[in-house]
Amino acid sequence: VTKALVLGSGMVGSVMAADLAEQPGFEVTIADARSEALERARKKTNIATITADLAEPSSVKELVRSFDVVLGALPSAIGFQTLRAVLEANKPYCDISSMPEDAFLLDPLAKERGVCAIVDCGVAPGMSNMIAGYAATTLSPCEEIAIYVGGLPLLRRFPYEYKAAFSPHDVIEQYVRPSRIVENGKLVVKEALSEVEHLDFPGVGTLEAFNTDGLRSLASTLGVPNMKEKTMRYPGHVAMMKLLRETGFFSKGPVDIGGARVRPLDLTAKLLFPKWTYDEGEADLTVMRVVAMGMKQGKRTRMTWDLLDRYDPATGYRSMSRATGFPATIVAAKIARGEIAKPGVHTPEALGAREGFLAKVLAELERRGVKYRATIEVL
Amino acid sequence: VTKALVLGSGMVGSVMAADLAEQPGFEVTIADARSEALERARKKTNIATITADLAEPSSVKELVRSFDVVLGALPSAIGFQTLRAVLEANKPYCDISSMPEDAFLLDPLAKERGVCAIVDCGVAPGMSNMIAGYAATTLSPCEEIAIYVGGLPLLRRFPYEYKAAFSPHDVIEQYVRPSRIVENGKLVVKEALSEVEHLDFPGVGTLEAFNTDGLRSLASTLGVPNMKEKTMRYPGHVAMMKLLRETGFFSKGPVDIGGARVRPLDLTAKLLFPKWTYDEGEADLTVMRVVAMGMKQGKRTRMTWDLLDRYDPATGYRSMSRATGFPATIVAAKIARGEIAKPGVHTPEALGAREGFLAKVLAELERRGVKYRATIEVL
Repeated sequence: VTKALVLGSGMVGSVMAADLAEQPGFEVTIADARSEALERARKKTNIATITADLAEPSSVKELVRSFDVVLGALPSAIGFQTLRAVLEANKPYCDISSMPEDAFLLDPLAKERGVCAIVDCGVAPGMSNMIAGYAATTLSPCEEIAIYVGGLPLLRRFPYEYKAAFSPHDVIEQYVRPSRIVENGKLVVKEALSEVEHLDFPGVGTLEAFNTDGLRSLASTLGVPNMKEKTMRYPGHVAMMKLLRETGFFSKGPVDIGGARVRPLDLTAKLLFPKWTYDEGEADLTVMRVVAMGMKQGKRTRMTWDLLDRYDPATGYRSMSRATGFPATIVAAKIARGEIAKPGVHTPEALGAREGFLAKVLAELERRGVKYRATIEVL
Repeated sequence: VTKALVLGSGMVGSVMAADLAEQPGFEVTIADARSEALERARKKTNIATITADLAEPSSVKELVRSFDVVLGALPSAIGFQTLRAVLEANKPYCDISSMPEDAFLLDPLAKERGVCAIVDCGVAPGMSNMIAGYAATTLSPCEEIAIYVGGLPLLRRFPYEYKAAFSPHDVIEQYVRPSRIVENGKLVVKEALSEVEHLDFPGVGTLEAFNTDGLRSLASTLGVPNMKEKTMRYPGHVAMMKLLRETGFFSKGPVDIGGARVRPLDLTAKLLFPKWTYDEGEADLTVMRVVAMGMKQGKRTRMTWDLLDRYDPATGYRSMSRATGFPATIVAAKIARGEIAKPGVHTPEALGAREGFLAKVLAELERRGVKYRATIEVL
């Protein structure tokens, strides 16, 4: 039996633990500092819980010692330090934290310890990387990869028609930070929220897609000359976010308000974030489209993957938690079975480049109800 | 020679003083606490200036003693106390301050002192009232009066396409305060920013009109069973203002931000109002439409008055200053000539009800380049 530890019992971590516990041969423990978060996970009978301060790397290092494989579902801000702590404990790791730091900086440490870590292993980053890695090796050459992804509430309510499926601070950060994309082989910086496109999704309608800084490792690992990642929302979102951003409501520079120094973003968080919080049991959906263009057997070919996943009322799992958590549990199980073992820090595009790997992961996801639809068109 | 005193040397007061100084038989003085504001007015050679604290009613009372007629162009917050101070000094008064209080409360004082005060004597309130007063007496019965008014920048710039021609705090107040309109003879309260209509103006394009609390005295003085006043902006304004309002950015209730108590509106003012400030010499325009419906000589008749006024590059006078200030100087001159003398506090609808009065005022305005176009349609 494999002893697995999930770090973080938030919306995604709790779903990861529950999913892994249903797989044969796993004994699952979940750790968090918040007892109410552990309470949520404990509803699944065969999950053990540990209360621990995961913001403290030494405590993480100590905690993971008695486990065979570790899964990370922690806030992005502590993703990097946690990766280092797990590697220093010589444990294999699969993480979805989307840390702002470059995880490859810890590649030498992982190799030195002889352990394998897969980072950015959610939906996007995650499945988007795995698909991109597959496309980049299947098409020759692969000329272009475009990733469109969004998490949305099913019901569109005035005025935002949006709820944040992960930290709203990270959402705002996406709207402020310059977006790095690849054009003609060069890294190009575009304003966040720029270059709006409209995409239609059956059963969802028209969404607007705009530049955000989402390529991450893909910008350097694949060598595809044209790559972009865009975030999708219900139409109108860009206008609203630009209004707030241009007025200064996302600014972190303190202003003087009657003698008090206030960061506008702090007030915005206070007023806005409660409106962006999913109600208990509120249905969400996850949409993703990855489009790759290139040559296949001498013919210009377009490969498209579409994901449309919805809240699961049977389990109460939010779609974003399913779409993000399941790739990590599937990969963690492969680590546990020794199918993924190469020492080092890797991102999922490396897995997608492996013969037959993507197909197996997509089949495992489909078994869990998360269905990607792939189409190939010869142009 | 008539000695006239203009209280307030802001954008409108300075234009009022200059206009009155050009009329034969007037000796004009302008008072303000701000020396830079007086400097602006002093560019007109035949205007005297006085530095005085006009927020102090006793100082106003003392100041007005040596003048024959007084004009008020002060912030709305001190409009009422200034009206009282002028009446207590036994001086006739013409005011554009749009005070939040009910000016008629000072009608007994004006009668006791035997002096006449015309309040709300700008464009809207002001000309809108005078036209409504005319329509209510010309049509019999007058069934409906709709007033649409807006001050806009000529150039529409992202994201707001708006500049505030008067205090931006008063603009926000209009978007928050419930709107009182008259329907079927009853006072009805509607949400501000509600019931959007679209109106076309030649040379301007389509504007959106929405409920604001602008009827003021008209709601009680005319007895017309259906009356509304709507504010006009470039399309999209309502969506932006509702977004900010619903998120709480217009709220005056303090929230706790890292230990500091902050009123969201104070931060919004700090961030937003600089973006709503006209640049020096920036062109604006004033649009107004008053539509009155009723019976005339037994036939269903619609009377419409349209105003489209623009920034005057020759004088550098902003359109809103012209459209607001000239009605007051025209009425003040009539007070000075004894044409308006009835003791009491009056609003312009009482003047509009007088035989031939509106036509004279419209002719005087046209002489100054502010042109109303009147049309009558038998339906």
